[in-house]
Amino acid sequence: MAYDNLSTDELRGLHARMIDEYADVKARNLSLNMARGKPAADQLDLSTPLLSVITSPEDCFAEDGTDCRNYGVLKGLPEARRLMAPMLDDDPDNVLIGGNASLILMYDVITWGWEFGVNGSAPWRTYDSVKWICPVPGYDRHFSITEHFGIEMIPVPLGTDGPDMDEVERIVASDERVKGIWCVPKYSNPSGITYSDETVRRLASMPCAASDFRIMWDNAYAVHHLYDDAVEQDQLLDIGVACREAGNPDRYVKFASTSKVTLPGAGIAGIATSPTNAEDLTSHLRVCCINGDKMNQLRHVKFLRDAEGIAAHMSKHAAILRPKFELVDRKLTEGLVDVGGCTWTKPRGGYFVMFNAPEGTAKRIVALAKEAGVILTGAGSTWPYGNDPHDSDIRIAPSLPPLEELEQALDVFVCCVKLAYLEKLLGA
Amino acid sequence: MAYDNLSTDELRGLHARMIDEYADVKARNLSLNMARGKPAADQLDLSTPLLSVITSPEDCFAEDGTDCRNYGVLKGLPEARRLMAPMLDDDPDNVLIGGNASLILMYDVITWGWEFGVNGSAPWRTYDSVKWICPVPGYDRHFSITEHFGIEMIPVPLGTDGPDMDEVERIVASDERVKGIWCVPKYSNPSGITYSDETVRRLASMPCAASDFRIMWDNAYAVHHLYDDAVEQDQLLDIGVACREAGNPDRYVKFASTSKVTLPGAGIAGIATSPTNAEDLTSHLRVCCINGDKMNQLRHVKFLRDAEGIAAHMSKHAAILRPKFELVDRKLTEGLVDVGGCTWTKPRGGYFVMFNAPEGTAKRIVALAKEAGVILTGAGSTWPYGNDPHDSDIRIAPSLPPLEELEQALDVFVCCVKLAYLEKLLGA
Repeated sequence: MAYDNLSTDELRGLHARMIDEYADVKARNLSLNMARGKPAADQLDLSTPLLSVITSPEDCFAEDGTDCRNYGVLKGLPEARRLMAPMLDDDPDNVLIGGNASLILMYDVITWGWEFGVNGSAPWRTYDSVKWICPVPGYDRHFSITEHFGIEMIPVPLGTDGPDMDEVERIVASDERVKGIWCVPKYSNPSGITYSDETVRRLASMPCAASDFRIMWDNAYAVHHLYDDAVEQDQLLDIGVACREAGNPDRYVKFASTSKVTLPGAGIAGIATSPTNAEDLTSHLRVCCINGDKMNQLRHVKFLRDAEGIAAHMSKHAAILRPKFELVDRKLTEGLVDVGGCTWTKPRGGYFVMFNAPEGTAKRIVALAKEAGVILTGAGSTWPYGNDPHDSDIRIAPSLPPLEELEQALDVFVCCVKLAYLEKLLGA
Repeated sequence: MAYDNLSTDELRGLHARMIDEYADVKARNLSLNMARGKPAADQLDLSTPLLSVITSPEDCFAEDGTDCRNYGVLKGLPEARRLMAPMLDDDPDNVLIGGNASLILMYDVITWGWEFGVNGSAPWRTYDSVKWICPVPGYDRHFSITEHFGIEMIPVPLGTDGPDMDEVERIVASDERVKGIWCVPKYSNPSGITYSDETVRRLASMPCAASDFRIMWDNAYAVHHLYDDAVEQDQLLDIGVACREAGNPDRYVKFASTSKVTLPGAGIAGIATSPTNAEDLTSHLRVCCINGDKMNQLRHVKFLRDAEGIAAHMSKHAAILRPKFELVDRKLTEGLVDVGGCTWTKPRGGYFVMFNAPEGTAKRIVALAKEAGVILTGAGSTWPYGNDPHDSDIRIAPSLPPLEELEQALDVFVCCVKLAYLEKLLGA
């Protein structure tokens, strides 16, 4: 029977039983981790051929004869730009290849806007305050970057179609200090939703008081479907096309990486943006570096080859990840049938499930789970400044543990949700 | 006979012959490059084993069991920090491993000082102007970074013992806006000199008006000797020890990379600095990145192993580079015997020879060489803002061309020096 319909005595009895159950769980001395979107070992194994596609000097030459072992080629190998283009929904000419992480590129783009402005605009640091739109739930590492610069972060609700566009349009319309928005537009981190075409078009066309407003389009999960059938895959409208059509060709910077395609932190990352933006970014990039790691670029080209090669490879990831996401949904559905006030997402791609616990219980759930040996992403981390006003959002990252460990971790999680909710209902 | 002792008629006759000789040189349609410090192909071949030290998942684990294929370990693998420690003259605990280039780390350190200050000091951007000491001749990419931030660069002569320390001490003593100095302290780029112990101690101990004054210690050629015998190798006093002894433990940041040990732009780079500085830098680093490329760190550890392994490997580089440096000296000595006013360095390590042409001829020499198919580093590039007031400094980078091509290139160079000097003497 639903908790909400139980009498106080019944709740007390249930609470006592849950305390025993929780004690049993703790006694298992588990050490499980559902905190970060890390691929599992068998996913990493899929990229084993990457390790040996280059073993001799003859393997080290690019299509145009460039010896990738030596200095040069600031923007990345032409074939690496071509490889990344479909992940960025763009033309290879608009692609710049960076280092081993798209996060660094995002940090750079904001640093340069902050310090030097954008295409000749006033440096953002010269304003009395700078503001940034942060759809919530969102990605904590995005928020860390804007927080680092003292940029005021404005949370806007993220629905199933993307951010609340009425709210976004209102905020950007009149305040030129609002300089950008963080977006994970496809299989969003953490809710797994994908922006609707209408959302993309409204972002591209909305009147902004700031002519240098920037959409930070972190398409981290562009090719990270859980299902092979195209009808079960989310489709995302290209923000670049939408911005050009709306007459705002420089409004966006797209980011992608192979971190969850090949090896996290040992892959390649790229940007796609307008030629004007690319020139502006390159003027800074050339001061701080001579080139990205072309050897690793070439490895990725030789291993993944092209869009078709990427899709085939991602299908193997999906075969490993899909059962984990399905297990999350099954265990939560079964375990929380009587517990009111819990919702969660069923994404068709990406790395996360967003769990909404009964208001005021998220921190307690995460603490209980930790005490029982299951590490979850910190409660609140999906909000700017770590401040979830409802204390409700918990990001579940099911990718890392093997299936049987994930099942154990979810049992613990369900137990902790129940216990925390009972504590709340009893005012304990 | 020395040009300076020739009559005008004799000079005219010589000039006519040099014009013919130059025409012959141009007719050869050469395409040679002595512009940048790029290793030659046979040097790159020395690192071929690096390409296949990791080919299977079992190879991917660090000493402590970390799977290097996944996210994490912001400061770098412990064994990678240990590997880089001797190149940085420091303890592994003080080493942070970055990405594929020390230049990026230098850019970061200056960006963070500029934007956030250093260990709580006022951000450098908050001063009406910021100044930086640039020993000349120096490295153009250093100067580009400080120029990028609008930092006023103050050239100070670099002698055979290091920068003119009387001048440096005078500049830093009274102006707190002088925030740092660029140093390539060993086998300096481009003159090949190594700072004397006294210079290092004076840098470490000099009274600075700015408590956040920083020595950017780019020890790019720490292990890049041309001779195997220790008595023919330059020794550099550790700036870290000197700074601690002088009571200025946070004054320095050391940089090194494997770019000219293994593969340029595909190696690993590191910083060594005081624990206080390391903590400050890490507070920024963790915002912009999750980790460096641990796979490449591990490759380097497996290939180079330790200080002894590095030394043995560098000895193979030296065997290739030494004849090139000796050829430069021989060709210049032979070719310029009659030409007054030319001097050049005979470094015992590093990648460059500094050539001082007769005043007012460097630009002309570089232009003549270019027209004859030999690319040299741009004249003036060894000075801040590319402005060599004597138009005399030319950086020779003999590493890239094979020996026979280098000989051709040097013949062209000698011809251009003669022609330019004759033009000058004749007021042509």
